Amino acid sequence: MDRIPILRMGDVLLVTIQVDLHDQVAMQLQNDLTTQIQRVGAKGVLIDISALEMVDSFIGRLIADTSSMSKVLDAETVVVGMRPAVAITLVELGVAMPGVRTALNVEKGMALLARSRLED
Amino acid sequence: MDRIPILRMGDVLLVTIQVDLHDQVAMQLQNDLTTQIQRVGAKGVLIDISALEMVDSFIGRLIADTSSMSKVLDAETVVVGMRPAVAITLVELGVAMPGVRTALNVEKGMALLARSRLED
Repeated sequence: MDRIPILRMGDVLLVTIQVDLHDQVAMQLQNDLTTQIQRVGAKGVLIDISALEMVDSFIGRLIADTSSMSKVLDAETVVVGMRPAVAITLVELGVAMPGVRTALNVEKGMALLARSRLED
Repeated sequence: MDRIPILRMGDVLLVTIQVDLHDQVAMQLQNDLTTQIQRVGAKGVLIDISALEMVDSFIGRLIADTSSMSKVLDAETVVVGMRPAVAITLVELGVAMPGVRTALNVEKGMALLARSRLED
């Protein structure tokens, strides 16, 4: 497994992170995601991390960076499925993830994206 | 990673298989999936295998079995994102996957599920 699949649903891209990301997979993901956003004109990105039992500062920063990149390409990022333990760790690590919105699950994330586009 | 996340989108459940499945993860997945179908009253299951570069007869049978289980619970299964090499392997292995419908990607799979429910 050298890349994480990006699923397209309308103008939203869904990324499910299931494996521990090391540098190369992470860079490939950012590369693939930005290319896809541009190609399909995506307006939103959902990153599902419900499979992650823990995170480190690398993943925290990766998500924050990916979100910033998407923003520049005019796509909003919502992180969904964060476990309580992960939220605790992120705060303890001081990885604030500014500009990243979160939702409980994919459905609520989709609703959040739809709402935020109505407001635009 | 001991279980594969199941994402709910309306009354469709989405499973993205990214890692090699060994026995225990596979059984856990079938267990989780059938529980979820029953709990949320799901009408469709999308299994995305776009990340799999190859399959063996174990995975072929797993998908066929999972599809049969869903059927009994009144949910239709669509396998999406199969790579050409995987299709070749499945036929060569003689894993026919009867009753499993396929679609090119998640979007087309969702459309297929929506259509087949209109016909019911």
